[in-house]
Amino acid sequence: MVYKMSDDNTVYIGKKETMAYVLASVTLFNEGAEDIFIKARGRSISKAVDVAEITTRRFLSNAEIIDIITDTEQIKDGDKTINVSSIEITIKVKE
Amino acid sequence: MVYKMSDDNTVYIGKKETMAYVLASVTLFNEGAEDIFIKARGRSISKAVDVAEITTRRFLSNAEIIDIITDTEQIKDGDKTINVSSIEITIKVKE
Repeated sequence: MVYKMSDDNTVYIGKKETMAYVLASVTLFNEGAEDIFIKARGRSISKAVDVAEITTRRFLSNAEIIDIITDTEQIKDGDKTINVSSIEITIKVKE
Repeated sequence: MVYKMSDDNTVYIGKKETMAYVLASVTLFNEGAEDIFIKARGRSISKAVDVAEITTRRFLSNAEIIDIITDTEQIKDGDKTINVSSIEITIKVKE
């Protein structure tokens, strides 16, 4: 599965280092986004939380995490269907 | 650092397999808890989301995730202080 790193206002967390996604997030805000979404599945979920925490605490003190939702997605692996947890973190510029 | 697996209404996610924490969560509800907290730090955050998703979707359809918050905790490692992300997931019996 190939993820683009960012698309519209969404940053998809994959195998790159954490700071690459922090930079992608900060860039979206600098380009004028008022809210962005950080999405991850499976083991990348921990990294998504790191990205959201670092982005809001170290780089963008005028932005905050306003919503976190989780889900279970079904992914086909050959004949089997695997359940994988996912997370979507919304960061928004403070008003 | 030693975590107890559950304390009052909180399940602390550590190195055991996911289903051990699902069982701990289900047990807390079966013992009468109306809401429980699943807490994790660092790489265990992904497992915490798995535990919450499996607990609510497969075992306790009358419970739901009502809140997810993240934080950054500072942990001393010798002379250094390391920032570690944490998560707290609240699951509550539906009314």
